[in-house]
Amino acid sequence: MKALLLIAHGSRKASSNQEVAELANKLSQQDSEFALVAHCFLELTTPKVPDSVAQLAAQGATEVVILPYFLAAGMHVSEDLPELLSQAQQNFPKVSFTLLEHLGAAEQMPSWILQQASR
Amino acid sequence: MKALLLIAHGSRKASSNQEVAELANKLSQQDSEFALVAHCFLELTTPKVPDSVAQLAAQGATEVVILPYFLAAGMHVSEDLPELLSQAQQNFPKVSFTLLEHLGAAEQMPSWILQQASR
Repeated sequence: MKALLLIAHGSRKASSNQEVAELANKLSQQDSEFALVAHCFLELTTPKVPDSVAQLAAQGATEVVILPYFLAAGMHVSEDLPELLSQAQQNFPKVSFTLLEHLGAAEQMPSWILQQASR
Repeated sequence: MKALLLIAHGSRKASSNQEVAELANKLSQQDSEFALVAHCFLELTTPKVPDSVAQLAAQGATEVVILPYFLAAGMHVSEDLPELLSQAQQNFPKVSFTLLEHLGAAEQMPSWILQQASR
């Protein structure tokens, strides 16, 4: 069973974190290859990465695709995420984890921006 | 003359800021309604917002569409940006400024994420 895990930075502002939760909820309602969708945060709020990984594994995920919901690759994306992935893989050796590039690196980003700016 | 201004947070990591500059460069090369494309940062690096606004005005922009290159609306998006917009409008009263919602609020975000996660 394939799962998508969004990892966001996390904010001191509850409504900002709620936006991420709502996005994950919308994603879970879309028709896609992902039977499970979850979200988690690096800092400042919960659920943290290990919490959501453990929950997905408990729900039966055999493959977890991790999308860093970041626009630019700062320290978090380039250093923290590979470390968290390594921990997840150690804790759940039977689950296959794939860490994608952060969203901002998407080739389509320029066209997405123009779509948004031209509405 | 219509301009697009991307506003990003800014990072301590130069390569992260460079990503934003490269994205603005790609956008400037795309065929769109925007004759000018610029980028700027809120913190930690330059160009800052007033620098880029002044440059666009000097280049002849009459309309500046501002896209907050943020995924979630934290304090920066909800408080700092409206204040910066107000300053820009005062400094350049003949230029029309439009502040868009941050990128993360795009209706298409769930489908963009699935595009990226399913590659």
